[in-house]
Amino acid sequence: MPKLNHQILLVSRPAVSASVDNFRLIEVPLPALKEGEVRVRNQFLSLDPYMRGRMDDRKSYAPAQKLGEVMQGGTAGVVEESRNPAWVPGDTVIAMFGWQEYGTSDGQGMRKVDAGKVPLSAYLGVVGMPGVTAWYGLNRICAPKPGETVAVSAASGAVGSVVGQLARRQGCRAVGIAGGPEKCRYLVAELGFDTGVDYRSASFAADLAAAAPSGIDCYFDNVGGAVLDAVMERMNPHGRVAVCGAIAGYDGAPLSMANPRLILTSRLKLQGFIVSEHLDDWPTALEELAGLVASGKLKYRESVAVGLASAPEAFLGMLRGKNFGKQIVKLV
Amino acid sequence: MPKLNHQILLVSRPAVSASVDNFRLIEVPLPALKEGEVRVRNQFLSLDPYMRGRMDDRKSYAPAQKLGEVMQGGTAGVVEESRNPAWVPGDTVIAMFGWQEYGTSDGQGMRKVDAGKVPLSAYLGVVGMPGVTAWYGLNRICAPKPGETVAVSAASGAVGSVVGQLARRQGCRAVGIAGGPEKCRYLVAELGFDTGVDYRSASFAADLAAAAPSGIDCYFDNVGGAVLDAVMERMNPHGRVAVCGAIAGYDGAPLSMANPRLILTSRLKLQGFIVSEHLDDWPTALEELAGLVASGKLKYRESVAVGLASAPEAFLGMLRGKNFGKQIVKLV
Repeated sequence: MPKLNHQILLVSRPAVSASVDNFRLIEVPLPALKEGEVRVRNQFLSLDPYMRGRMDDRKSYAPAQKLGEVMQGGTAGVVEESRNPAWVPGDTVIAMFGWQEYGTSDGQGMRKVDAGKVPLSAYLGVVGMPGVTAWYGLNRICAPKPGETVAVSAASGAVGSVVGQLARRQGCRAVGIAGGPEKCRYLVAELGFDTGVDYRSASFAADLAAAAPSGIDCYFDNVGGAVLDAVMERMNPHGRVAVCGAIAGYDGAPLSMANPRLILTSRLKLQGFIVSEHLDDWPTALEELAGLVASGKLKYRESVAVGLASAPEAFLGMLRGKNFGKQIVKLV
Repeated sequence: MPKLNHQILLVSRPAVSASVDNFRLIEVPLPALKEGEVRVRNQFLSLDPYMRGRMDDRKSYAPAQKLGEVMQGGTAGVVEESRNPAWVPGDTVIAMFGWQEYGTSDGQGMRKVDAGKVPLSAYLGVVGMPGVTAWYGLNRICAPKPGETVAVSAASGAVGSVVGQLARRQGCRAVGIAGGPEKCRYLVAELGFDTGVDYRSASFAADLAAAAPSGIDCYFDNVGGAVLDAVMERMNPHGRVAVCGAIAGYDGAPLSMANPRLILTSRLKLQGFIVSEHLDDWPTALEELAGLVASGKLKYRESVAVGLASAPEAFLGMLRGKNFGKQIVKLV
């Protein structure tokens, strides 16, 4: 009797906003392993904002997710069976098996990680792609000097929380922008940000001005839209904006920028990036991040949805800011 | 009987669009020179888009022009009288005497130039601030590689015409964007651009795509607004945008940017600059530009308004693209 695998497919593209109807959960038999193959039982799925972009079939930095195929994404799991001498059962691995219980591979695209040093799920967040994203945008694009003010949006999320903590460690004032008072309190009390600003508050623009009394030198942007507009008004001359995400506009019509003339009058640099194009920096970044997590100097938080079937709702909730910290799915 | 000077003052700020009513021509006596002073008879006034920004009293890279004072701006003239040993009558000088017939100075802010090598008026354009602006934005921000496509707006103007010619000399495809078929023909026939695109045409977006079949790697932006929006859609991954001006939005409400998400998805760099903050590069740039003009390898064109009284109308016309080449006022 063959073992079964469960998978979530993308079956349709959003007209405007994504919905659970764009996904379908299916059950398929697991084929027997061939010579050279490895089977991994996924323990955690990574849910990331970039996935929303791939649901659309339009020009972007990554090709569109194909319809009728397993939703792509990062996974953390354990080798269960191996016909490949490089892998043995019990190995903990990071891969891109997507939204399914089991992944099968010839070993390509799998990375062995030490789940004793840091928890396995952290390799999907603070010591994984989101952590390196924070590291790269902050160090390579913003390049803040000690004493400067660094603002970051989606600040309690997987990327933003790392940006603010690294900025503080570099002697900068860290201003976190997040949705709601609970997240803002967390930024200061748990992560050590200098201050948190609630973008949902009616007084957001004034709160932001008060939070950055010397203006903003660097902005790590995960959201775009109205928050970007407000931050640009507070940027100091020669400010740097690392454009990492635009989640405010991912799930609907494109958002405009209110006053691009500020790029000229404040002599700003805005630069978009995608961390997968900068693989040279990954080892340095991962080593630093893993060390800081292991020694308790870099904190993180996870939003955990349980069971494969919960992935679509958890993903859609994340697009609306319902998560609090890195959004993952724990498979059971 | 004292000699007379004529001056144009800024007497009010535009509510939205600038008008001739914002200026006033006055006649004042010229005071006798004091010890150490020099008197220059201005032959040419420089009219530049940045002046529109200074007419408003809002945050920008330069302080606002004060009301009741002579409109500021670059000038080219001849020393008529000197009580300063460093200057003798007949010296040709560039200065910032503004919109008036005579300038008086202790020598500060005056620069002697060789009007035999290149015509005196060229020091206000191709071998002056606009030329260095083109040189800086192209070389220091765009930094195009041979074979890349460089687009520039306001391409027949003082800055844009230099950008395209320098790009061609660096082995790039030069795409000029200008208003109307006459200017576009001039770009190709006289300046050697690869092609010219008329932004006023109904088929502008399609024409731009055809003009840059391999996409656009570098964009030198003088105008902002809808032209910037259209160019951004054609930018290649890792494209660079030197944000030099936003003339489309100078004389009215701020213009938005339609699709800033492209900064992320195409991993673009947009960088604003003002050439007066990069004085280190001026000598290198000016030497190169003067050499190219003297040897006939760098061409330019001037729109000449005659007489001090013509300055306001010529300035307002330039904001609407009525000029064809560098706009100057020749004093008589």
